[in-house]
Amino acid sequence: MARNITPRSQDYSQWYLDIIKVAELADYAPVRGCMVIRPTGYAVWEIIQAKFDKAFKETGHVNAYFPLLIPSSYLQKEAEHVEGFAPECAVVTHAGGEKLEEPFVVRPTSETVIGAMFSKWVQSWRDLPLLINQWCNVMRWEKRPRLFLRTSEFLWQEGHTAHATRDEAEAETKKMLGVYAKIMKEDLALPIVEGVKSAGERFPGALDTYTCETMVSDTKALQAGTSHFLGQNFAKAFEIQFQDANGDQQFAWTTSWGVSTRMIGAVIMTHSDDDGLILPPRIAPTKVVIVPISKDDAKFAEMSAKAHELADKLCAVLGPLSVKVDEQNHMRPADRFFYHLQKGVPLRLELGEKDAANEAVRSVRRDTGAKEDLKWAELPERVPAILDDIQKSLYEKACAFRDANTYEVDSYEALKAQLAKGGWVKCFFAGSVEDEKKIKEETQATVRCYPLAEKDRVGTCVYTGKEGAHLAIFSKSY
Amino acid sequence: MARNITPRSQDYSQWYLDIIKVAELADYAPVRGCMVIRPTGYAVWEIIQAKFDKAFKETGHVNAYFPLLIPSSYLQKEAEHVEGFAPECAVVTHAGGEKLEEPFVVRPTSETVIGAMFSKWVQSWRDLPLLINQWCNVMRWEKRPRLFLRTSEFLWQEGHTAHATRDEAEAETKKMLGVYAKIMKEDLALPIVEGVKSAGERFPGALDTYTCETMVSDTKALQAGTSHFLGQNFAKAFEIQFQDANGDQQFAWTTSWGVSTRMIGAVIMTHSDDDGLILPPRIAPTKVVIVPISKDDAKFAEMSAKAHELADKLCAVLGPLSVKVDEQNHMRPADRFFYHLQKGVPLRLELGEKDAANEAVRSVRRDTGAKEDLKWAELPERVPAILDDIQKSLYEKACAFRDANTYEVDSYEALKAQLAKGGWVKCFFAGSVEDEKKIKEETQATVRCYPLAEKDRVGTCVYTGKEGAHLAIFSKSY
Repeated sequence: MARNITPRSQDYSQWYLDIIKVAELADYAPVRGCMVIRPTGYAVWEIIQAKFDKAFKETGHVNAYFPLLIPSSYLQKEAEHVEGFAPECAVVTHAGGEKLEEPFVVRPTSETVIGAMFSKWVQSWRDLPLLINQWCNVMRWEKRPRLFLRTSEFLWQEGHTAHATRDEAEAETKKMLGVYAKIMKEDLALPIVEGVKSAGERFPGALDTYTCETMVSDTKALQAGTSHFLGQNFAKAFEIQFQDANGDQQFAWTTSWGVSTRMIGAVIMTHSDDDGLILPPRIAPTKVVIVPISKDDAKFAEMSAKAHELADKLCAVLGPLSVKVDEQNHMRPADRFFYHLQKGVPLRLELGEKDAANEAVRSVRRDTGAKEDLKWAELPERVPAILDDIQKSLYEKACAFRDANTYEVDSYEALKAQLAKGGWVKCFFAGSVEDEKKIKEETQATVRCYPLAEKDRVGTCVYTGKEGAHLAIFSKSY
Repeated sequence: MARNITPRSQDYSQWYLDIIKVAELADYAPVRGCMVIRPTGYAVWEIIQAKFDKAFKETGHVNAYFPLLIPSSYLQKEAEHVEGFAPECAVVTHAGGEKLEEPFVVRPTSETVIGAMFSKWVQSWRDLPLLINQWCNVMRWEKRPRLFLRTSEFLWQEGHTAHATRDEAEAETKKMLGVYAKIMKEDLALPIVEGVKSAGERFPGALDTYTCETMVSDTKALQAGTSHFLGQNFAKAFEIQFQDANGDQQFAWTTSWGVSTRMIGAVIMTHSDDDGLILPPRIAPTKVVIVPISKDDAKFAEMSAKAHELADKLCAVLGPLSVKVDEQNHMRPADRFFYHLQKGVPLRLELGEKDAANEAVRSVRRDTGAKEDLKWAELPERVPAILDDIQKSLYEKACAFRDANTYEVDSYEALKAQLAKGGWVKCFFAGSVEDEKKIKEETQATVRCYPLAEKDRVGTCVYTGKEGAHLAIFSKSY
């Protein structure tokens, strides 16, 4: 087999890019920092999208579409927001053959323009809550792009909601974090930790940012999704006001929350190995590939017909188009096996002449390589069970890896020493934004979050010595 | 009832905008010429999208995503293409705080950047056909925007395919026209005529453009979707070459085809009346609304519970979230009825105390106003049948209207006279692009298409007197 993937141990970044290349997930676009999401990568995105979209609708949200271009003046209306995003914006200065009076920015996120529309739509308490989501492209100019993780353009969803009370908006922020975490754990098999961001890592304009942090296979952290409690900052900047039941004018309380194509980067880094991509079955476009094998053309046609028959039966259980038949008979069997292995197909069913004689196939798991002979008749029952087991074991393996690479320390010296070695490092921390900056300079690591599951633990801050500090996770990150 | 819609007979344009407003389909964005697609309008788009997407996948196409920004130099590579699109482009000149070396245009369509990627991906005849589709936003600066019909930004899909032979590419172009026409007729209930465009109306860079033309209720034509045979123009401009089975280098043959949110404009104009929106049931997000009615609070709660029970039973047949219960009991019943009528809900089921005593509801069709008492037990069977009948009768009504407003003439004088009165006018035509321009100046009408169903009819051109001319449809259009 040609070695077309750099080993992880040799060059992790190159390994990641090689996986994307051999699995045909994405490609660099001719526009610097932008990517082309190839059909296989996009099919993964469509499946992920469908799962989130369903969950949003089940929690009462509706989709809408807002303009790509935002007047520059809008960005200025929220002080922290413009400071955070203006330097990354792409700017349209000409259109329709003329110079524009006011330049537009290509949306880096849509709080501002959606805030302006909400102020038109919200009049009375009866109009609230307003629960809206948008699937779209956004643009943030990247100096050091990396496919899926950081590209100048990416696809995402941004939820934007307005509520009558602070409590309701905070509850929404946390509810959507939970929706995110559930799908990321159950479907993407990511070892997510839910937490709240430190002041230095908050979304520009938010009072609180909640995050789904995950650990990838080089032990760095990756922020897979965030949910922001925006307080009344955007409501005041864009005059989202309503008349309450007593007839008084009130400012609304808003939230926003988003996940993007960057999740695909997290999936690739978490599960794949030196042979190629590994995809959790629930988000794999092709869950099973059947490979008929025969050197004899007539026999191959026969095997192939049988393979299609089995594929149809499996599709009825696993969903349309989720089982493929490999008919690349101009290639050697081993090359055909490796082709699908590299592309991350969770389960391969080999159908040779001997297998056929036994009314069986030889199944090979992508994650463990485990082989098993399965009778044709038992496929519709056994294959879903094997796929469920792959899904479960990928998640468990990722969680075990995260736990094995998470440390707890009680001094700043120990924090620095462990961060230099890698992994996530927990410690009590109550430093300021300024302290966070200094620690980042010294360690290249940041506070990833204060994990919600451990919010009751308090102790002495390793940096300031303050008592009553909460437990934080520090790590280098993508 | 407050008259919040301008009658069609008084001001057609204003009627159209009023419908969009009362049905909460879309809103003007703070960016000139751009629109916000509101949740109800977007839900219609999602249903339409799902139908097309399914049909694309069933015909072997896969989705992908290409960059929003296109280097200006790309547009220059195909001579007709740049002439057609450059004047409408929005241009990004600055990004990441710096002036760009080469400006980017926001994609008006993606033949160029997709062509560049295809040239990387296509090497051998084994890589063909390449059948790719993209769902995305595009931008064409509009001087006279109109919601859904012409906005500076709109949502669409663009199919792009590459083939080994001319025949295959031409067959693909026609196949996708057929896919479009079927969905537009069966689901959108539009009275589509399939045809081929005249030279003057072709896509810039295409050898042939096929179109789905529809007639809206002021008898003007609206182009609802197009499919282009691009020959080898883009393959040569972007070097999409492959090695054929004999080892020779060949240029590929390409196609592109697209439908957009403008179809929603066609639906609104075709079916709605002076009371508000009318939506064909198959693309209505809310297919049925149940309105429980009682002045007594306890009784209302009882009715409401019953309504939810009936809604759940109907959702099991019609699809999740497709049946709503109206609980706006602070409004008068008549106002609640009118609320849903204006929003185009195909069927209303009223549940008053008398109806409840009879274990029945009173059903009211949006299209005809026809009322019928239906027993609760028969709803899961009768409601889908009524919705099917509404769907069918909307399509038949639209076709009958189109036919009643289509004329055939045999002289240029008669053509001009009829065009001044309105409608579609058929005649034999074999004029040049120059002739088409002159006719447009004199009549404000254009050749909408040469209808495929009548391609065998030939006669004397009404403008040039040439023999062997084909039958063309002239009309004013959106």
